Amino acid sequence: MPILSTEIFNEADAGFVYQSNSNDYSDGFEGPEKKLDIRFGPISKGSVKSIAGSPSKVGLRTIDKEKWQTVLDSARCTIISQTSNDHMDSYVLSESSLFVYPRRAMIKTCGTTTLLHLIAKMVQVGKECGLEVEMVVFSRKNLNQPSKQVFPHCSFSDEVNFLNKIFDGQAYVMGDVNKDHWNLYIADFRKNPTLQRTEQTFEVMMHDLDETVMKQFFKREGVSAWDTTVNSGIADLLPGSMIDDFQFDPCGYSMNGLLNEFYWTIHITPESHCSYVSFDTNVALADYNQLLAKVLNVFKPGRFTAALYAEDGAPCGDPYTAFDVNVPSYAIQNKTVHGFDGGYDVVVSNYQQLDKKVNFSNDDLIQSIESTNIDLIQV
Amino acid sequence: MPILSTEIFNEADAGFVYQSNSNDYSDGFEGPEKKLDIRFGPISKGSVKSIAGSPSKVGLRTIDKEKWQTVLDSARCTIISQTSNDHMDSYVLSESSLFVYPRRAMIKTCGTTTLLHLIAKMVQVGKECGLEVEMVVFSRKNLNQPSKQVFPHCSFSDEVNFLNKIFDGQAYVMGDVNKDHWNLYIADFRKNPTLQRTEQTFEVMMHDLDETVMKQFFKREGVSAWDTTVNSGIADLLPGSMIDDFQFDPCGYSMNGLLNEFYWTIHITPESHCSYVSFDTNVALADYNQLLAKVLNVFKPGRFTAALYAEDGAPCGDPYTAFDVNVPSYAIQNKTVHGFDGGYDVVVSNYQQLDKKVNFSNDDLIQSIESTNIDLIQV
Repeated sequence: MPILSTEIFNEADAGFVYQSNSNDYSDGFEGPEKKLDIRFGPISKGSVKSIAGSPSKVGLRTIDKEKWQTVLDSARCTIISQTSNDHMDSYVLSESSLFVYPRRAMIKTCGTTTLLHLIAKMVQVGKECGLEVEMVVFSRKNLNQPSKQVFPHCSFSDEVNFLNKIFDGQAYVMGDVNKDHWNLYIADFRKNPTLQRTEQTFEVMMHDLDETVMKQFFKREGVSAWDTTVNSGIADLLPGSMIDDFQFDPCGYSMNGLLNEFYWTIHITPESHCSYVSFDTNVALADYNQLLAKVLNVFKPGRFTAALYAEDGAPCGDPYTAFDVNVPSYAIQNKTVHGFDGGYDVVVSNYQQLDKKVNFSNDDLIQSIESTNIDLIQV
Repeated sequence: MPILSTEIFNEADAGFVYQSNSNDYSDGFEGPEKKLDIRFGPISKGSVKSIAGSPSKVGLRTIDKEKWQTVLDSARCTIISQTSNDHMDSYVLSESSLFVYPRRAMIKTCGTTTLLHLIAKMVQVGKECGLEVEMVVFSRKNLNQPSKQVFPHCSFSDEVNFLNKIFDGQAYVMGDVNKDHWNLYIADFRKNPTLQRTEQTFEVMMHDLDETVMKQFFKREGVSAWDTTVNSGIADLLPGSMIDDFQFDPCGYSMNGLLNEFYWTIHITPESHCSYVSFDTNVALADYNQLLAKVLNVFKPGRFTAALYAEDGAPCGDPYTAFDVNVPSYAIQNKTVHGFDGGYDVVVSNYQQLDKKVNFSNDDLIQSIESTNIDLIQV
């Protein structure tokens, strides 16, 4: 087990469950999702379960909707809709999405859901399919109101402590802890480290969105979810996809896209005081600049965080340079790259719309010092 | 002011001062230093103080030893020795070092010193010299026993909150928060962002050092500090330097090196249960691989963290590739890079001696799940 540093951990929180009404969204809905991406491998040769006569029903895909709902009960969310193709099963949830491949489950949930509570069930489901955990990636952006979450989601420290009781992982805070940042926990038990791996995932997490754009995602009489998907420009982001979309009442929108073996998913919180949109995909591109430009053009965020996970053999190449091009109308605030000895890199960049950028001057500093209680003793 | 995230902050700690004897080192001395690097600029044209007839006495160098001691009183450490050359004044302290350039003060203090308490005095001293703060960099490795520190040094969260009351900075946790990592706070108020800046600093923070090597840094009858500096190989690390060294009784060693306009400094905690050595320099090299190899050869750590700060015009070039070469006998654990829009990058890498590397298997994972309280409900 790793040498644990309790330095940034709030020990007082351990075991703490926030007691207030966890569905109190009076200060705005918590759009930023928690995301859990678990990859599995066979427990032994030939151990992976399959259903005779159903060639796509292999591994985790042998699990039916009802059983997944039992798993999801632990995270406090429900299945709204299901779509499948030859490669995966996709579920739109009351709070975000679940994608199931034969050896991989990617689930993201927003609001005050308790995503990490379902890990034990997920591990057990894998075991019943003849699979064992090979890799666990838990990630999320900083939350708007962490104190409204349920343990262990009130703080990344608690989440890390929770995960460390099960896995031997690495935990990173990527970006400025004062502002927009992205928390990442990775436990990697994969054997055969010399194998060239090619997976990559790309996420864009957007805040302060254009109000005119966001109006489209309030429920309107006579306008279907599909109308909104087409009219907003979402349908054109990755053409040729099978799309499962849902318009919430009175507002909010979710969609899952299936493009052959690749998923993509969008979740929208349109209220102006807490507007948030996430875009997430594992589509294999040599670079994401064009896709990023299209996403920004559709949603027009005031600021956004882009995150890229890329294994050494991924088509996007070295992710360090992945976001080096100028993003029109946006200024990069900072970029964080983590290189892992398991053969993959993660890069997170924060951007702000140019006309919304605030500069801080030395005059502000002088004012800060003068207005604070710090003792300016004459020496 | 920035949008504050309290997510990883321990609010309960705010204002908290650890009440036990802060000089209780029964569990080992806290070697890892806190470091504060403040750069100043003139308040106005011609404002910078100088002393007629003493060409090197400009700006902060007009401050004498007695006045610096008054500043250092706030951090709870004392000046042991002073050395100067044409470019800087160097002070060996009871806990680490202070280097003073006309417009820059770099101070690092170990143990349970209260480094951030001296900021207000430092700002005031600058003002008296006709200088205003241009940039503040506060950094430190994770501590062995953070709870033995005095507020705000019990946690990085508290340090960030403390600094945010004065500056508008960015805060980063670099590396795995579970293991060795490096905390960084930067507030940059420099004007003229188009100016090509060339500063770079290189630090190596070493743990679990070779016991035979460490024996040299226990006080021995008839062996001077200079004998140790020469015999240990320290004197050869950067030949041609002016060296101010000090052997503590019964153990511990500090040295300041002055190589023209560059500083270097080493601090050693040799006791086997808490052994730690830091090497820190701003010497301008095109790459640090050879210097790093020499440092490792002298001290033989079990594990170490290397940190490089480099401005865009620094001779070392892009720091992302700075540590890409193989370090013989050591395996890289992870690498974190932060790019800042102010025109500088910081890279932090963690390494472990090859024969001390511990691997974690899937069997351990299964055991962890089985031995934990997490409920494996049949679904």
